[in-house]
Amino acid sequence: MSRVKFHDVVCVVKPNFGFWSAVGAFEQLREFIGYVQGLHHLPVILDWKSGDVGPSAEQYAEAIFGYFNADAVTVNPLLGQDTIAPFATYDEGSRGVIALCKMSNKTSGTFMGEGVVPAMSPALQPLLYQRIAAEAVGWNQQYGNVGLVVGATFPEELAEVRRIVGSATLILSPGIGRQKGDLDGTLGANDDGFLTINSSSGILHALPNADCIEDAAAAAGKAAEQLRDQIRSFHSAAGSPK
Amino acid sequence: MSRVKFHDVVCVVKPNFGFWSAVGAFEQLREFIGYVQGLHHLPVILDWKSGDVGPSAEQYAEAIFGYFNADAVTVNPLLGQDTIAPFATYDEGSRGVIALCKMSNKTSGTFMGEGVVPAMSPALQPLLYQRIAAEAVGWNQQYGNVGLVVGATFPEELAEVRRIVGSATLILSPGIGRQKGDLDGTLGANDDGFLTINSSSGILHALPNADCIEDAAAAAGKAAEQLRDQIRSFHSAAGSPK
Repeated sequence: MSRVKFHDVVCVVKPNFGFWSAVGAFEQLREFIGYVQGLHHLPVILDWKSGDVGPSAEQYAEAIFGYFNADAVTVNPLLGQDTIAPFATYDEGSRGVIALCKMSNKTSGTFMGEGVVPAMSPALQPLLYQRIAAEAVGWNQQYGNVGLVVGATFPEELAEVRRIVGSATLILSPGIGRQKGDLDGTLGANDDGFLTINSSSGILHALPNADCIEDAAAAAGKAAEQLRDQIRSFHSAAGSPK
Repeated sequence: MSRVKFHDVVCVVKPNFGFWSAVGAFEQLREFIGYVQGLHHLPVILDWKSGDVGPSAEQYAEAIFGYFNADAVTVNPLLGQDTIAPFATYDEGSRGVIALCKMSNKTSGTFMGEGVVPAMSPALQPLLYQRIAAEAVGWNQQYGNVGLVVGATFPEELAEVRRIVGSATLILSPGIGRQKGDLDGTLGANDDGFLTINSSSGILHALPNADCIEDAAAAAGKAAEQLRDQIRSFHSAAGSPK
């Protein structure tokens, strides 16, 4: 049986810092990032959701892009451009910054997705995720390397963000896989913009109770290949060259 | 000359994770936290500004409260209660969670401090920091261990947050020291609530070009003592027993 290799199918790897730090595996994370970049020539987004500012944010940029040498980072933009700038300007702007915009967790709507003036007509009020997207347009004019996270469970909001930021801005869309995001809905809403579909648990935990690591790896490769084929199939049906 | 000992003057120590991770000093941070807790019996707030949710946030809680064994953590609440719960419920709710509410960096007003419907009268619209404070009331009813960060450069907003959350909720107020926050304004606005005044650079960098570590330590101790005395002096003048 020919085995699907994970790295032949995916275009980027996004480790979440929480899972590595929980077991103190900092050196292992650093090695893993170098391994992915060096052996497989894949970029690494370090999913850190950094949300600090000023001199502290500069230190986080040094940690994430210097010490861990990630190619891009996820950032929590609550505190505004100060959270973005230290990452966007690091190493002459050669790394990527991906700001949380519309997330798929249950309570993200508390601040990001519902109107901030509940008594007003929804049609009159910009929602926080729309404001983040609008700010990102300015950040990108200034830096050129800022993307957004928009959960795959929200195709309507993805379409809205795509309208605000245009087709050239990277949108990272998690929620495909374990969170049952709507792949075709996401791809349709994206309108051929620069999109990265993100499946984490769906690939990593494709065979959660595997007896050996080889079986788990084979299942992960197969899950990644299936997702790639689903994306290709959508584009074939839509007549897109992608 | 009798030397002021830093740990005789301060009530809590708040290392910022960025500064330690930038140089890969994870093991040293862990040792430092144990040292502060063990030798000096001071609690440690690990300033991480964690902003993740779900299984990832649970891993961050394990990292911060398990691996690093911090007593409390700062959290970026943009994604709602899902960012709070894994920390607030960790170890039977024995640790503290301090959510960013009103910050002192320049661009924090972009989302947190300005009206989200600029065309509306400010009197009619709740601002995002007010919504965070209002949500925190509910989080505290549920968990009992959630505080808020309100920058010392905003006494009016501190008074507003204090009105919303009441006197028993911890407010951590950074910005005294290098950011020239108004100490008396902060203490006055706080209205005798549960407040922790935070000076980081003002104490740590009290003597930035010291020739030796002993001089730097002595200067830090003196700066901490001066700040404590200023706080005491305010309370004496105000006739408060604190």
